[in-house]
Amino acid sequence: MNLVSLKLITIIVEDELEDRIVRELKDLGATGYTVCKARGEGTHRARISEWEGENVRIETIVSDAVAEKIIAQLAGRYFDKYGVVVYVSTVEVLRAAKFIPDQVKDAK
Amino acid sequence: MNLVSLKLITIIVEDELEDRIVRELKDLGATGYTVCKARGEGTHRARISEWEGENVRIETIVSDAVAEKIIAQLAGRYFDKYGVVVYVSTVEVLRAAKFIPDQVKDAK
Amino acid sequence: MNLVSLKLITIIVEDELEDRIVRELKDLGATGYTVCKARGEGTHRARISEWEGENVRIETIVSDAVAEKIIAQLAGRYFDKYGVVVYVSTVEVLRAAKFIPDQVKDAK
Repeated sequence: MNLVSLKLITIIVEDELEDRIVRELKDLGATGYTVCKARGEGTHRARISEWEGENVRIETIVSDAVAEKIIAQLAGRYFDKYGVVVYVSTVEVLRAAKFIPDQVKDAK
Repeated sequence: MNLVSLKLITIIVEDELEDRIVRELKDLGATGYTVCKARGEGTHRARISEWEGENVRIETIVSDAVAEKIIAQLAGRYFDKYGVVVYVSTVEVLRAAKFIPDQVKDAK
Repeated sequence: MNLVSLKLITIIVEDELEDRIVRELKDLGATGYTVCKARGEGTHRARISEWEGENVRIETIVSDAVAEKIIAQLAGRYFDKYGVVVYVSTVEVLRAAKFIPDQVKDAK
């Protein structure tokens, strides 16, 4: 089995941000994503959040380089204004090429 | 990017236990959590479980110290009686302070 | 706490494959699984996928040996024909025996 280590980024946000964030993930090089409905509670600006309700849990598997771009952009655009949670873990995948955008593959 | 390693605890239980476990997570120092509906099958007391139906998948990101307390309490209170599944992984987060309770931050 | 490292396999597929894949997971030695509804988009045969709709996210925690068998079988049976995503991560569990099939436990 030819397993390759890639980054799994999980983003938990209000559902109204889903379309916008999915578009940004694709623009930054994510080739796919998965969304589950979620609910929960968290902190926002170090206070207990007022948002408790319908959230989504967006997952995408990307290269290290794309992960860094995604994290930087999410932090810059959403962290001040929204109760977004972002976390990154390392996963092993088969068919790693599936998760790497064409322009990167072409450049190799 | 200032990523910090924290523990992601995932708990899969019957949905009737959700409120009680969420309360316990908060009492032990979790500052947030995410819940998804789930279903599945497992073993209970080394038997194929009778529970197959509506479950929830509860996630919380906490410090190592809080993770240890949560795991110990869940094991002590639920493992004998319920088909609960608990697993822990390491994730990288931005804004780590968001996941650390105030009393701990104050103590620093 | 007696935490043991096992493999968490996550499989994202069209929901019509759920029953078949769950049966295969059990046949290969998985003692339990969790399913969440999901939706998303991905690539299929290195093209943007035509599948966008109701998917499921199947999780199972297994030993390294069972993980290898599951991955090999999923790759052989589904990767050519379906837009399935499979990824593996390492998780720490309590009560590891719960996740190991009886025939393996008996053999020890």
